[in-house]
Amino acid sequence: MEKYGSGHPPEEITSRANPRIKAAAALLKSNERKKTGRFLTEGARLCGDAVKSGVTVEEFFSTDGAKEKYSDVFALVSGAAKRTFIISPDVAEKLSDTRSTQEMFCVCPDSASLTESDIKADGFYVMTENVQNPDNLGAVVRSAEALGADGLIVFSGCDIRSPKALRASMGGLLRFPVIKTSDCASLIERAKKNGMKIFATVASGDAADISKADKSGGCICIIGNEGAGISAEMLALCTHKITIPMLGKAESLNAAAAAAITVWEFMKERGKKANVAN
Amino acid sequence: MEKYGSGHPPEEITSRANPRIKAAAALLKSNERKKTGRFLTEGARLCGDAVKSGVTVEEFFSTDGAKEKYSDVFALVSGAAKRTFIISPDVAEKLSDTRSTQEMFCVCPDSASLTESDIKADGFYVMTENVQNPDNLGAVVRSAEALGADGLIVFSGCDIRSPKALRASMGGLLRFPVIKTSDCASLIERAKKNGMKIFATVASGDAADISKADKSGGCICIIGNEGAGISAEMLALCTHKITIPMLGKAESLNAAAAAAITVWEFMKERGKKANVAN
Repeated sequence: MEKYGSGHPPEEITSRANPRIKAAAALLKSNERKKTGRFLTEGARLCGDAVKSGVTVEEFFSTDGAKEKYSDVFALVSGAAKRTFIISPDVAEKLSDTRSTQEMFCVCPDSASLTESDIKADGFYVMTENVQNPDNLGAVVRSAEALGADGLIVFSGCDIRSPKALRASMGGLLRFPVIKTSDCASLIERAKKNGMKIFATVASGDAADISKADKSGGCICIIGNEGAGISAEMLALCTHKITIPMLGKAESLNAAAAAAITVWEFMKERGKKANVAN
Repeated sequence: MEKYGSGHPPEEITSRANPRIKAAAALLKSNERKKTGRFLTEGARLCGDAVKSGVTVEEFFSTDGAKEKYSDVFALVSGAAKRTFIISPDVAEKLSDTRSTQEMFCVCPDSASLTESDIKADGFYVMTENVQNPDNLGAVVRSAEALGADGLIVFSGCDIRSPKALRASMGGLLRFPVIKTSDCASLIERAKKNGMKIFATVASGDAADISKADKSGGCICIIGNEGAGISAEMLALCTHKITIPMLGKAESLNAAAAAAITVWEFMKERGKKANVAN
């Protein structure tokens, strides 16, 4: 007999008007996530990642088709979830944020994985200021995780529980240490007192070539908004300015590419033993 | 009086069934582009880029609203186009590949910007093998252009005139030297005879750390398919294998991030004077 977190087989839900479905679907909106402190993951990959990352799963929704197709994930998530529900494909449509849904969803409480006091004074952290595009935020996390950064600090901008950002991060936003802060000035001042360097990545001007800058020791590297860059207030808090020199004539790098190069330049100098998995 | 390429004011088209509109809309499909040797650009930015990049514009379509909103681009493109047509918003919808169209389109002949004989033996070229995702192909071109590579060689995979790839490249696919090849073995053998190194970027194994490899002199660096990587046939043609060491535990870099780091590593060693524009 199948085993479920609650010990008894799942209920079925076939109505899109079911209050539980309406509440879960509302989590596709940022303000509802903010209000309730919960978020929704979609797809076999992200539902499995939530459980593997130790995220609490309050409700798990799956169609019978998804249960069969992703049976391993179904077993994993239904074993961990507080409640499991079998939903109809029609209901799955209502919960979906994608063109072609995998018909599996988790409702999870949004607990921050890291707090400010977890910041290691000798670590390397990426901090985003007002990055708006969820694909960009997700790409920054994915690069930071793959290249071995110690965590991400998010100040303003895109919601880290946005379905798009979760997908673009390939689940990294569930696994990777993330701090949300609304008071970056205090956070940065404390980091500076602990001897950390604060780098602003900027477009040009008097900034040092990123490959030549001294990136040793504890560092926080700030990546600014896609259009406006780093704010003047934030710039004033930084101890160093760096830039990626562009040899080409015409265009700039996109935000995700610039972030990848930036994290790479910091991490490759940090003397960890490289693990060549790619 | 306004000046048009043809010397007389534009015709109006208000029917989605107009044969010219049907022919242009068909270019949204890859097989139609292949059959006719023409492609479609959408949006003020890409239509302007086509003209600035010296691409022939056979037909230019714009609504009155777009003509007013992007008057500079309208003047530029209508001055260069062989024929200009004012279309209704309804017709613009039919030509559009985007959620929110800017209602400006060009039909252009697809002439390759670079041929194999233009490859400089001391240059740096990125070669993609069977990259399928147009966003990835566009991102590779954008990074290659921004960082100053000498050109892109495309072997198999996504159509370089795909509307998505054009957008993701920010017009780079119109401006940047691109060679399409169906016989990469001959191309690579000739490059090797000219003293060029051929690098395969691979996931792991016996590959050298990209930051430590000798990347001097003429180089072609191959980026493989998103899932399958570089084919065994292609690998056998390469003279060097390199990898981006991952310090993180969980995930891999996405294709665009890996390409950005790869191009960056090659370009920053090439001793050109850096232009710090970003």
